[in-house]
Amino acid sequence: MSDFNQPISGNDLARFSGPDTFMRLPPANALDGLDVAVLGVPMDIGTSWRSGARFGPKQIRAESAMIRPYNMATGAAPFDALQVADIGDLAINTFSLSDSIRIISDSYDAILTNDVIPLAMGGDHSITLPILRAIARKHGPVALVHVDAHADVNDEMFGEKETHGTVFRRAYEEGLILPDKTYQIGIRGTGYGADDFSEAQGWGFQQFPAHELWNSSLARMGAEIRRDIGDRPTYVSYDIDSLDPAFAPGTGTPEIGGLTTPQALDLIRALKGANIVGCDLVEVSPPYDPSGNTALTGANLLYELLCVLPGVGQR
Amino acid sequence: MSDFNQPISGNDLARFSGPDTFMRLPPANALDGLDVAVLGVPMDIGTSWRSGARFGPKQIRAESAMIRPYNMATGAAPFDALQVADIGDLAINTFSLSDSIRIISDSYDAILTNDVIPLAMGGDHSITLPILRAIARKHGPVALVHVDAHADVNDEMFGEKETHGTVFRRAYEEGLILPDKTYQIGIRGTGYGADDFSEAQGWGFQQFPAHELWNSSLARMGAEIRRDIGDRPTYVSYDIDSLDPAFAPGTGTPEIGGLTTPQALDLIRALKGANIVGCDLVEVSPPYDPSGNTALTGANLLYELLCVLPGVGQR
Amino acid sequence: MSDFNQPISGNDLARFSGPDTFMRLPPANALDGLDVAVLGVPMDIGTSWRSGARFGPKQIRAESAMIRPYNMATGAAPFDALQVADIGDLAINTFSLSDSIRIISDSYDAILTNDVIPLAMGGDHSITLPILRAIARKHGPVALVHVDAHADVNDEMFGEKETHGTVFRRAYEEGLILPDKTYQIGIRGTGYGADDFSEAQGWGFQQFPAHELWNSSLARMGAEIRRDIGDRPTYVSYDIDSLDPAFAPGTGTPEIGGLTTPQALDLIRALKGANIVGCDLVEVSPPYDPSGNTALTGANLLYELLCVLPGVGQR
Amino acid sequence: MSDFNQPISGNDLARFSGPDTFMRLPPANALDGLDVAVLGVPMDIGTSWRSGARFGPKQIRAESAMIRPYNMATGAAPFDALQVADIGDLAINTFSLSDSIRIISDSYDAILTNDVIPLAMGGDHSITLPILRAIARKHGPVALVHVDAHADVNDEMFGEKETHGTVFRRAYEEGLILPDKTYQIGIRGTGYGADDFSEAQGWGFQQFPAHELWNSSLARMGAEIRRDIGDRPTYVSYDIDSLDPAFAPGTGTPEIGGLTTPQALDLIRALKGANIVGCDLVEVSPPYDPSGNTALTGANLLYELLCVLPGVGQR
Amino acid sequence: MSDFNQPISGNDLARFSGPDTFMRLPPANALDGLDVAVLGVPMDIGTSWRSGARFGPKQIRAESAMIRPYNMATGAAPFDALQVADIGDLAINTFSLSDSIRIISDSYDAILTNDVIPLAMGGDHSITLPILRAIARKHGPVALVHVDAHADVNDEMFGEKETHGTVFRRAYEEGLILPDKTYQIGIRGTGYGADDFSEAQGWGFQQFPAHELWNSSLARMGAEIRRDIGDRPTYVSYDIDSLDPAFAPGTGTPEIGGLTTPQALDLIRALKGANIVGCDLVEVSPPYDPSGNTALTGANLLYELLCVLPGVGQR
Amino acid sequence: MSDFNQPISGNDLARFSGPDTFMRLPPANALDGLDVAVLGVPMDIGTSWRSGARFGPKQIRAESAMIRPYNMATGAAPFDALQVADIGDLAINTFSLSDSIRIISDSYDAILTNDVIPLAMGGDHSITLPILRAIARKHGPVALVHVDAHADVNDEMFGEKETHGTVFRRAYEEGLILPDKTYQIGIRGTGYGADDFSEAQGWGFQQFPAHELWNSSLARMGAEIRRDIGDRPTYVSYDIDSLDPAFAPGTGTPEIGGLTTPQALDLIRALKGANIVGCDLVEVSPPYDPSGNTALTGANLLYELLCVLPGVGQR
Repeated sequence: MSDFNQPISGNDLARFSGPDTFMRLPPANALDGLDVAVLGVPMDIGTSWRSGARFGPKQIRAESAMIRPYNMATGAAPFDALQVADIGDLAINTFSLSDSIRIISDSYDAILTNDVIPLAMGGDHSITLPILRAIARKHGPVALVHVDAHADVNDEMFGEKETHGTVFRRAYEEGLILPDKTYQIGIRGTGYGADDFSEAQGWGFQQFPAHELWNSSLARMGAEIRRDIGDRPTYVSYDIDSLDPAFAPGTGTPEIGGLTTPQALDLIRALKGANIVGCDLVEVSPPYDPSGNTALTGANLLYELLCVLPGVGQR
Repeated sequence: MSDFNQPISGNDLARFSGPDTFMRLPPANALDGLDVAVLGVPMDIGTSWRSGARFGPKQIRAESAMIRPYNMATGAAPFDALQVADIGDLAINTFSLSDSIRIISDSYDAILTNDVIPLAMGGDHSITLPILRAIARKHGPVALVHVDAHADVNDEMFGEKETHGTVFRRAYEEGLILPDKTYQIGIRGTGYGADDFSEAQGWGFQQFPAHELWNSSLARMGAEIRRDIGDRPTYVSYDIDSLDPAFAPGTGTPEIGGLTTPQALDLIRALKGANIVGCDLVEVSPPYDPSGNTALTGANLLYELLCVLPGVGQR
Repeated sequence: MSDFNQPISGNDLARFSGPDTFMRLPPANALDGLDVAVLGVPMDIGTSWRSGARFGPKQIRAESAMIRPYNMATGAAPFDALQVADIGDLAINTFSLSDSIRIISDSYDAILTNDVIPLAMGGDHSITLPILRAIARKHGPVALVHVDAHADVNDEMFGEKETHGTVFRRAYEEGLILPDKTYQIGIRGTGYGADDFSEAQGWGFQQFPAHELWNSSLARMGAEIRRDIGDRPTYVSYDIDSLDPAFAPGTGTPEIGGLTTPQALDLIRALKGANIVGCDLVEVSPPYDPSGNTALTGANLLYELLCVLPGVGQR
Repeated sequence: MSDFNQPISGNDLARFSGPDTFMRLPPANALDGLDVAVLGVPMDIGTSWRSGARFGPKQIRAESAMIRPYNMATGAAPFDALQVADIGDLAINTFSLSDSIRIISDSYDAILTNDVIPLAMGGDHSITLPILRAIARKHGPVALVHVDAHADVNDEMFGEKETHGTVFRRAYEEGLILPDKTYQIGIRGTGYGADDFSEAQGWGFQQFPAHELWNSSLARMGAEIRRDIGDRPTYVSYDIDSLDPAFAPGTGTPEIGGLTTPQALDLIRALKGANIVGCDLVEVSPPYDPSGNTALTGANLLYELLCVLPGVGQR
Repeated sequence: MSDFNQPISGNDLARFSGPDTFMRLPPANALDGLDVAVLGVPMDIGTSWRSGARFGPKQIRAESAMIRPYNMATGAAPFDALQVADIGDLAINTFSLSDSIRIISDSYDAILTNDVIPLAMGGDHSITLPILRAIARKHGPVALVHVDAHADVNDEMFGEKETHGTVFRRAYEEGLILPDKTYQIGIRGTGYGADDFSEAQGWGFQQFPAHELWNSSLARMGAEIRRDIGDRPTYVSYDIDSLDPAFAPGTGTPEIGGLTTPQALDLIRALKGANIVGCDLVEVSPPYDPSGNTALTGANLLYELLCVLPGVGQR
Repeated sequence: MSDFNQPISGNDLARFSGPDTFMRLPPANALDGLDVAVLGVPMDIGTSWRSGARFGPKQIRAESAMIRPYNMATGAAPFDALQVADIGDLAINTFSLSDSIRIISDSYDAILTNDVIPLAMGGDHSITLPILRAIARKHGPVALVHVDAHADVNDEMFGEKETHGTVFRRAYEEGLILPDKTYQIGIRGTGYGADDFSEAQGWGFQQFPAHELWNSSLARMGAEIRRDIGDRPTYVSYDIDSLDPAFAPGTGTPEIGGLTTPQALDLIRALKGANIVGCDLVEVSPPYDPSGNTALTGANLLYELLCVLPGVGQR
């Protein structure tokens, strides 16, 4: 029996019962002793089309009750090696995007002081900028695995510099990420011109448009990224809309022609061994996900990310 | 400032955030010191038509985040006077109705030992029989305010004696309730013969069919019931399908021509002063409640019941 | 034990099981020996806004599995006195409104030859014109109880004379109904001028706009209509959109400010004793009724109509 | 034939076709010559619970295709007397509540310069504060008919002074409204203390809690308010959540025990003759309104408001 | 023209019309003369997460109205060679899992006495254990093609030995199946340890985890299984959750990273020539399938299974 | 800056705002000066199963607000080279299929007189026959790229010659298309016999059943079709049900085992250089598409078709 926190088993307590924490892990108020903190950032006022991601953390937690502790495909057993807890939600200001961004950044500073790896459940993608600010304060500029339908490198939207569509330009400008170790995977769709993508290539970003990935496994590409990263501190920002709407209908700005869940799983599993210092899973929008399956997918991707964190072994 | 547990305010923490307890009250593992325990009984294998009430407690808790502590209509301030907590769910056996009934009864014995008033979120109506068994062991036969579309006095269903349609015949036979202080309110619809209702009248049950209540307030009728009860220990079993499907669409066995929410509120508010020793709110079925408004209604009715518990004052 | 067809009891066979006939009555291919034939007319190409009523018969039948044989409010026991069966659907031509209208009329001629009372499940309201043609061939001009949000007395729509909005002008012009024994109940909303309603008053139609009925029982008005009809052969055409959208959301042309289900029940029950020779329940549109409750309401109204047919007694 | 803009008739062009303007009126870019401008304010970042009201204007317009020009209940014929057009949406900044509030106020100044009566489709209720600022600049402090489940008189929420819950305290403080000619109708539910409502009474606000209105027509109360207003310039702010969730499920902060649509219609119709200078209909949230019926209700209430504007006659 | 039962053609009777049998085949009460009996087993009290599969048979039948008799891809013409009828539902006891399991087993004994091949529509997967008991009594231990996201080889759940998660351990222990001719295809997700799968491998089960099948046709693997089976009596148990939730959202325990419908079709088609003695299609849960497309998929998979039954030819 | 009409940018006006035209392009009443006219044909009375496609144009337009002007994958910039506008809907007669077919044909004659390329948003597939009649009058028999789950070559349905299932037999018989330059892609499912497909092969149609396309890109096949067409005038008729229901759930007659969106995109992109003279995108049925993602997919496919029209260049 492990000394670490364990999810409540579906054979011990009915899945539709028990705490509404991620995987029904114990909640935690204090950070000391934790290796990994799962947390919610329920904010959606940075989104430009369908709202609703404010309910993402609630729904991801609810659907995560289906997940058992052991990864049948990879043999990873994260709860044998890491102390994981759900530390609840950040207390964002739902009426002010700028104030919420400040709150998120400050909260992450506090979390990172404790040498905890944060796994965030969004919320729209604008949460990632303040997260990266705190991450960079702690770790310096990081490698970034950014899986998304959109490059999110607009300069501004409606005159605003901090929205869900400007995150990675800001991160580049502020030196929060290593440009040539930034990987944008699954980008696609329509834009305003070729430089919507190519300008970021000029900064060094490595881009993997979805249409170049169709009908193939991402295991090899993932392995190459893994090698390229080396042992640099790495952040993984996972936008659920990287998936095709068939696989993730419940999101705010869906784009057709996206990734499949097998591709998503192969990609994450290939990252095993990287020095991951934080992750987020964003843009699950429950009002557009009546079956709950998008939230279920988000919960599983977070679990798979947990399975490739440093220190996790196989059995 | 009160010494008692308080719900988290929607002005302090965004409503879509925070613990998934009833009204975002503190969770509690221990019963000592509590006046009222809110709990979930997530079981729906006693239902005969649409299932899904197993998710009732989760959804009622989620929607209860809208409720603030003070009752604007009555002035009741339950958290000024009572120590209330959410003690989580009973660990029912989702594969066995008979075993679950045993578990519920045993669990209630433990709760009642602590002189706590239990407020249960169902679950289908079959949970009320084991609850009444424990209640009667503690308090002797009780007065029963039973608000429902159905009388639930079948002798058996498919040869089974314990289902959501046989509860109150069993309760009568086992002497758990005071027959002439049993009030069935809102019953209606179709049956197999007049004695579906009238047999229970023969036992002493006082019945108030919905069609006799249409287009009128229930304040007066509630006051008469209140007087008739006197100071007897009283249990309130509230089936959400007592409401018309317009007001509570998300339930397992809806019947048209039901009560309105104003009627429901007037009825509950009239019970103020009764010696209520326990309550339940059953048959909210989230898969049939996509807007969440049925669960919201259930949460509000539970709150209104809390407001009329012994000891609650007004300000 | 009755000699007549009986619905399968929910205590004998689980409600989500068994034949998909109205109330799980026996299906019938032949009409001889029947007193009442329940039938579907699955056609919606006469509708002007939301389609979907083609699935009305299927969904009404599915939801009717909840209904038991005895009317708890009125004591009516229709299956003690009448031989009732579900004779399936008319084989309409889903690509041609005019051809379908011909088919319906011919089919009704065949049904009426057998001295059977037909209870039709629509379909949109355009089915009622060919029904009335056959009814009038059989019975002469009939009294008409027409419950609806709309008067359906347009002269034409897009140049067409036979649609769901022109039914009762045609019926008047063709002498199918007794104008001064035609009662339009629940009409409301917006129009193109006062004569949208008043012209029909000039023909003799008696109109009861919804806003004159708000907040009151229809029992008295129903009784007056009942007396006014006398023993004339009477047809009842019930458009589910007569109900407020709160009570019947799943319909093609909803109008706010409508009737309640208690009003609908009081109205139908008041017709007991009339010489009803046929009924229809139209405009249930399942794609707009995800909970199924509008179909359930339609099924119950049909059942209540069954309860007031000639020959039905009480016990 | 009128010289004024007319809605496209459903008998000329299929309702599911044509322009997506309010009632399929002509769109207008210029304001000169207009008596009434219908406009959208698609903003929902001022809401505290369920978002989605940003799609309100789109959905209200879509459902308004059902509405015909003449009011069958009152005889009002607004398009005989007023030049009405849909002027589209205000170009809010979806990432900044404070900037949006500035934009709304400025836009309204421009509209009001043209002596046009604005009818706004929200959006959440926070749009009403900047509207009232412009209205007061034009007309001085106005009488206010405020129909809502909530008083919206919080001092601040999360430290913010301008949200959907603080509108009418700000309006009072800034002298935008006449306190003793401010009528709050339909307020109810739970709060933090009696002064949530009573403090505003101290300012002079006249409050009509929902529970005092249950089961009765609002015609008389409306007439009394109408008399009390006299000929003062009057603004009507209509929150769809004033209605019970049975009648308006698709809204952001529903409260049980609310008004019915008959009550809403009686109330608005009683205002005929008042000097109404502007109106809004807010908080329709389409993601929570799958049938579209809440938007349909909102569209009808706007139409009824149009019918009681100065200058509208009957025929 | 065939002498055998034929589905009603969609060109003869509108698809939304007619009997609610599988493919609108004739219903049958007697088994004599039948080659294949399609039947419903509407039971979901053996499920551990989302319920609702009790409505599976109804919805699969409804959606099967789309299917025509001839297989355009394979040329199979099942109704040229086999007498097929829909024999309705088994009369399970919805309140008792153990009693229902007994009823299913007894009912299957009666069916198999008539040398009929049963095609069952579930219901949750717990129905397969009693089916296999009857199958083994008739045919001895059978080869088993088990397509599923889950291995369903738990020893017990909540102390129960017979649930939807323990079926194939029981079947193994009771000698109902040939362990080394048992093929588990599509299994995946999370578990409690490697032996969740590997223990069954020790019994001889051949397992084909989903992640080894991604991005490839199953035609070859199906052909190898087909050869390995030889002419042994073979049972096919098809859990709809073997499919990815993108392809089958409406199910009780979805797992991401599953099979595609092309894979499912290739797999079934490869089984042609096997000595199939029975099939089931389980875990379609209509409350989580608002479009009906999961039921449609289930209906098509059943049809494809029909196309590979012994005796079916091509034209 | 281009001289041509441009879609409103999502960075200038919030996407949930602005005109409800395709891609928020300017509406146009006149055709002169246009290169491409996008139009709606909101008719669904030619459909045989689920209705609702009448709302297709409205919903496709609404979802098209997400699409930006530049194609990130191909570099196509259609609005640099073509004058495109949304000319609204054809005024069909919703009560008569035959009359609507006449109206569509006449309307297309008028459009084509102006040398405009029409891009139609359906509506059900029966709209394509009158379109092809007008196209052939203008261009003579055309090459036809027909992407669909169904061949739509029935002779008649219910005795009708013009329905959504008979389009391409009529087009062949009337000489509207070049039989040996007719490509049917994605056809599959069930039928009444092999000649459901093979008869059309006898006419010269080139068929590409879905099951021969599974798991592979359509780029090569598209290129071969492109070469085979040469410079013949070409019409593209795109039925959204060619896609698998996972990718396009909201359609009237879904068939499993269909195309993926990557396949659809590769196919369309391969047509670049063909002399396309018109396109349609049909069978999006919003009532079965609650997330809106099927309409979004339809909007994107129309955009991709726009990107391969003659004259469109890359940048």
